[in-house]
Amino acid sequence: MKVIKPTFLINKDQCRKNIAKISSKAQKYKLQFRPHFKTHQSAEIGKLYSEAGITKITVSSIDMAMYFMNNGWQDITIAFPVNVLEIDVINTMAKNIRLNLLVLDEHSITFLDENLKSNVNIFIKIDTGYHRSGIDYQNTSKIDELISLISDSEKMNFNGFLTHAGHTYNATSVDEILNIHDQTICRMKKLKSHFNIHNPMISTGNTPSCSLSENFEGVDEIRPGNFVYYDLTQNYLGSCSEDEISVALACPIVDINAERNEVIIYGGGVHLSKEYLEIDGDKIFGKVVILKDCGWSNSLDNCFVKKLSQEHGTLHITDEYIDIFNIGDIIGILPIHSCMTANLLKENTVII
Amino acid sequence: MKVIKPTFLINKDQCRKNIAKISSKAQKYKLQFRPHFKTHQSAEIGKLYSEAGITKITVSSIDMAMYFMNNGWQDITIAFPVNVLEIDVINTMAKNIRLNLLVLDEHSITFLDENLKSNVNIFIKIDTGYHRSGIDYQNTSKIDELISLISDSEKMNFNGFLTHAGHTYNATSVDEILNIHDQTICRMKKLKSHFNIHNPMISTGNTPSCSLSENFEGVDEIRPGNFVYYDLTQNYLGSCSEDEISVALACPIVDINAERNEVIIYGGGVHLSKEYLEIDGDKIFGKVVILKDCGWSNSLDNCFVKKLSQEHGTLHITDEYIDIFNIGDIIGILPIHSCMTANLLKENTVII
Repeated sequence: MKVIKPTFLINKDQCRKNIAKISSKAQKYKLQFRPHFKTHQSAEIGKLYSEAGITKITVSSIDMAMYFMNNGWQDITIAFPVNVLEIDVINTMAKNIRLNLLVLDEHSITFLDENLKSNVNIFIKIDTGYHRSGIDYQNTSKIDELISLISDSEKMNFNGFLTHAGHTYNATSVDEILNIHDQTICRMKKLKSHFNIHNPMISTGNTPSCSLSENFEGVDEIRPGNFVYYDLTQNYLGSCSEDEISVALACPIVDINAERNEVIIYGGGVHLSKEYLEIDGDKIFGKVVILKDCGWSNSLDNCFVKKLSQEHGTLHITDEYIDIFNIGDIIGILPIHSCMTANLLKENTVII
Repeated sequence: MKVIKPTFLINKDQCRKNIAKISSKAQKYKLQFRPHFKTHQSAEIGKLYSEAGITKITVSSIDMAMYFMNNGWQDITIAFPVNVLEIDVINTMAKNIRLNLLVLDEHSITFLDENLKSNVNIFIKIDTGYHRSGIDYQNTSKIDELISLISDSEKMNFNGFLTHAGHTYNATSVDEILNIHDQTICRMKKLKSHFNIHNPMISTGNTPSCSLSENFEGVDEIRPGNFVYYDLTQNYLGSCSEDEISVALACPIVDINAERNEVIIYGGGVHLSKEYLEIDGDKIFGKVVILKDCGWSNSLDNCFVKKLSQEHGTLHITDEYIDIFNIGDIIGILPIHSCMTANLLKENTVII
């Protein structure tokens, strides 16, 4: 592997382990495992899932759905409120694959009813407490209305309820993640029993909750995505160990200022994104590892990315390590949010 | 213009005005104007500069330099510490165009001396106070050493000193920006007089300083980039009026929660980047405008992007405006940092 510019390294063996971990949990609890592919957006990483027997996937845009359809995936949920403006692409896909869409309003359902040319499966997007999008789980009258509209349509099959408990990402402890997850499935179960006559499927579960919880009572399907790579955010939340992070950004060193304990890398906001963790008052945009032939070291104590501009990254490097680096060396950075970094590095990735 | 998914709108007339503004300032002060193309990374926007008589440009990576070389640009400065690992591409370009590189250490100079196949021009990167990369302007002995090494080389021509006073972006007032700029050019002038025998060119000037200052004494070249688009950061700094912002992200509305004063758009961190401004305790990831046939309104009072996930944006919309929007409408967002948004939307841009 010869790295000459910022390159996203993916450790295939660790990805396989991460997939196996969640896959076996899904089997244990008899859950349908429909991993979210927005994390990697990569046909090649998709193959690792195929090898593990996965056939159903989740994406978060119509473009991503097209990409994976064109790479052979035949059962795709677009876990994003349906964007009816893209009806032409929706129709192209609905003709060819099993397509599952999310709705949350009458207008979109009516539009789909009038404009769909093939059958699609429909989830109603439920808000169980994250308060981003969806219908409040207690608003059963509105949900009832939507189910009626869907049931009246020839082209739409009502599939069930889908929620995303994204507030697990704001949790400050593992217990809080578990509590949010328990509350989510409790609310979804209540909803299911209310609409039992329609036999709705319950789809929930993100990386923190699927990594940590052993309670999936009443859940039919889980859709975590980030776990295939994990990242420092997940590590900070307690969802994974640092060893389980399967990706790192390899960056050339272009300047060193030993007196300031700083190393400047070619690797900036257009590579890592500008996401950060705030730890003990420091903004941390990544942690520093030493690259090896087939992987990387543990993160170096108290060495981190402290600032990012468009193409530059400024690393804080302690006295202990500052002398081991030279201009022209390649250094590794564990990302804060692997989905964002993977999205930015689509064209410069190496699978090791 | 039919927008069906997040689309980066560029108002060409406003870009032309912004180019004319800085261009005429450069003429007034007899400065070489070498605009930074990392902002747009677009051959089409490049043409607006050609039409304005610009022939010399700045970029921040070797990839960008290649792209613009392939689009006819013949005089390119890569304003980033030279990444010698990309020597093969450097040689390809040096053979074909006037290529100007930045150095800041002996190792890279020696490497270039041994490996360059054609002539290049060399700037020494000077740190005048931003403390990102470069040699401290007071470290004349080290600078002298580097100039000697460059002068001894057959393939390298010493061109002068280049600095980036990026700390103007941390300023909290226009006065502070002007003071940083004045300090920068004062330090560069001192350096120039010290090395007068080499007749070094002085290259400095970014968007805040070039937009606001009328003092360019001793400066030979300016390299602002962002001004062609401007953005909310520049508006906040005082570098531009909101009217001068020439770009907006057009986004479909996919959910509305009137009781929470929230509108959910298809438009997230993979479109806007996660940069924000902190204003009166609120994190603001963009401001909201109403799109018109050939442009957009002023930003709506107190309406802004308050949260971003990968594909979703959550807008805060006041009572005054919440009822005018419907699911399926297209709304406009003024970006916090146009360079980052332009980079993310390379493949979905409309010039209006």
